[in-house]
Amino acid sequence: MTEQTPLPAGFSTAGFRCGIKNDAPKLDLALFVSDHPCTAAGVFTTNLVCGAPVKVSRDRLPRATARAVVINSGNSNAATGERGLKDARRMTALLAEQIGVSSEDVLVASTGVIGRFLPMEVLEAGIPAAAKEVAKSPESFLKAAQAMMTTDTFPKLATATVKIQGREIRISGACKGAAMIAPNMATMLCVIMTDAKLSVDATQTMLRNSVQDSFNCISVDGHESTSDSVVLLANGASGAEVASAEDQKAFQAALDEVAVKLATDIIRDAEGAHHFVELNVTGTRNRDEAFVIAKSIADSPLVKTAICGADPNWGRIISAAGYAGIPLLETDMTLVINGFLLYESGTPVAFDAAQVSKSLRDNRVVTIDLKLTHGSGKVRFWTCDLTKEYVELNADYTT
Amino acid sequence: MTEQTPLPAGFSTAGFRCGIKNDAPKLDLALFVSDHPCTAAGVFTTNLVCGAPVKVSRDRLPRATARAVVINSGNSNAATGERGLKDARRMTALLAEQIGVSSEDVLVASTGVIGRFLPMEVLEAGIPAAAKEVAKSPESFLKAAQAMMTTDTFPKLATATVKIQGREIRISGACKGAAMIAPNMATMLCVIMTDAKLSVDATQTMLRNSVQDSFNCISVDGHESTSDSVVLLANGASGAEVASAEDQKAFQAALDEVAVKLATDIIRDAEGAHHFVELNVTGTRNRDEAFVIAKSIADSPLVKTAICGADPNWGRIISAAGYAGIPLLETDMTLVINGFLLYESGTPVAFDAAQVSKSLRDNRVVTIDLKLTHGSGKVRFWTCDLTKEYVELNADYTT
Repeated sequence: MTEQTPLPAGFSTAGFRCGIKNDAPKLDLALFVSDHPCTAAGVFTTNLVCGAPVKVSRDRLPRATARAVVINSGNSNAATGERGLKDARRMTALLAEQIGVSSEDVLVASTGVIGRFLPMEVLEAGIPAAAKEVAKSPESFLKAAQAMMTTDTFPKLATATVKIQGREIRISGACKGAAMIAPNMATMLCVIMTDAKLSVDATQTMLRNSVQDSFNCISVDGHESTSDSVVLLANGASGAEVASAEDQKAFQAALDEVAVKLATDIIRDAEGAHHFVELNVTGTRNRDEAFVIAKSIADSPLVKTAICGADPNWGRIISAAGYAGIPLLETDMTLVINGFLLYESGTPVAFDAAQVSKSLRDNRVVTIDLKLTHGSGKVRFWTCDLTKEYVELNADYTT
Repeated sequence: MTEQTPLPAGFSTAGFRCGIKNDAPKLDLALFVSDHPCTAAGVFTTNLVCGAPVKVSRDRLPRATARAVVINSGNSNAATGERGLKDARRMTALLAEQIGVSSEDVLVASTGVIGRFLPMEVLEAGIPAAAKEVAKSPESFLKAAQAMMTTDTFPKLATATVKIQGREIRISGACKGAAMIAPNMATMLCVIMTDAKLSVDATQTMLRNSVQDSFNCISVDGHESTSDSVVLLANGASGAEVASAEDQKAFQAALDEVAVKLATDIIRDAEGAHHFVELNVTGTRNRDEAFVIAKSIADSPLVKTAICGADPNWGRIISAAGYAGIPLLETDMTLVINGFLLYESGTPVAFDAAQVSKSLRDNRVVTIDLKLTHGSGKVRFWTCDLTKEYVELNADYTT
């Protein structure tokens, strides 16, 4: 499925093994390079403890002249102080030199262990070597996606096309997900490229819009990473400019499609998870209230273990809504799981527990619909179950 | 240790099996009765989805004429609508009739499965039968504590004495903890009795003070129960009145001692836990900021699994502080685990990982000290690790 994800026009990529990861011959360096200057925007972790690459890239965005992104896996360069900042800037300079641009026009991201300094000698050699391998092929894109992975079990790529000014433009992205090789942190990194032409403002606005309903609507374990970064690069190589309201709407929809595909892939590949959970909270006063309720449910270990055990334990779901901090009454809530009505306007509904449990056991995808009576606010949120494998992956390791 | 916890003067208790629990011959009904009218106060769950007994007891408190508390385990009478409220009130009437008081002077609490109606026929027979068994002995107190248990592995009792107006007064309490028999909710219930004489205001104020630094500073899994209730009854049977500032201070300290002992017993008995974690956050601008940071750390599944795995993964701890929502810089933080300095003023400290890991493996009690540089705010917070056993207990069950 992912083997043939094409790049937008004017972008080339590489996935390279430079030797940051000690274990196995794994790719650990990804390059994303544009032939032309790009408008670029980013959305980053709001964690006040954030990686050096987050600080460096955030300072450089948005901008109108971005040319490349360099990403390493195996070391997040987080909690590494001044030396970490110097190393992150050096990574961008190494790539800038190879492609003949200002280092300010190169962005950087890192994922992996926290609190260790980057092995710069490896990157000093690796980045120039990787730069020689960049190519415009789907194969190079796949390798770049693989080089971002930590314990992700599959590479995550997505692409969409849309007609703008009579021309077909393309949006393609790659991300890595919530997988930790202990003692690493879950870290989500994503690069999205397009050959459409966008203003800097539009790049930032449309990326924020897309992220709000995709990457900001997923939770594996509620622990916000130090390194989360989503970057959008638009190089205009298609010759089509996204300017009119109509074109912006069409582009936004295509960007949303790519972002949702990549974000939900992270949940599909969530550490130790047996179930992919789509949570629809509707009927709230506004979208924010739906979001807060959804996140409270998604982050409850009791809800997550119930899903793991195929237990239609609706009390855990409505009680997690109850402590979300949003004003509500029990009688305002109706709950449907996998199409089975379990709780209606505050009253338990008689249901066949064995049948609902079977549905939860037999389907990897679980749909939870919580309907309120307050208004037309709603959100779609994705999460996963909490399993013994998750605990194993994150506990059975010693630094 | 707990077998000989004495009751304060003028209180009698009973633990009885009336048959709410289907499994095994377990006690499931606890009575706490005072010979004299008590000033009484309560602190309850803030979950908007709360049990019927919470609504009934909360409405009756604080008051100056309370006489008894009736508690059942095996069914939380939560999410049961109007019928649940009627049943909870009926439980108080049944006990009131036996002891010859107004039913308004009886409080009620329930713990167990959510969303099922109470088996009232069992309680109609059980409460009068149990009322005939109340006694002033430590044995009856132990049985009352046992009758509150769900999957708690040990009964939780505590007592303290303090001199007030030259007389020794006693404070004794029993609680049950964060143990779930699937599909039950973790539910914390606590009754504290004293033979001191207190005003209604003082009863409420001092209970709130104690709860803030004990029951409100523990977290097993961050899922706030529908049924949490802590009740303090003061019957004045000692003849000593807690009125002067000095006496209030002495009483508060003794009440704190009882509350902290009971609250930490809940963590000692937390479901599936291997480690008891004491988290000291100090040097914040105020107590609230310390609390928010501590809770963010305590509720992170990544922190909890690291402790389970004896992994000195300090990055998970400081990053959980980073997303707590309190303004801070990495350089403001210093972290010490079990006496080992791991992170100092934003810089990783070289340490012997094997030695720290051994300390985590060999000690059931883990101490985490996070020191900030903002002021003199601080909090002590207790939590536990997240283990495969926790997931098993809460997942490997089907309703």
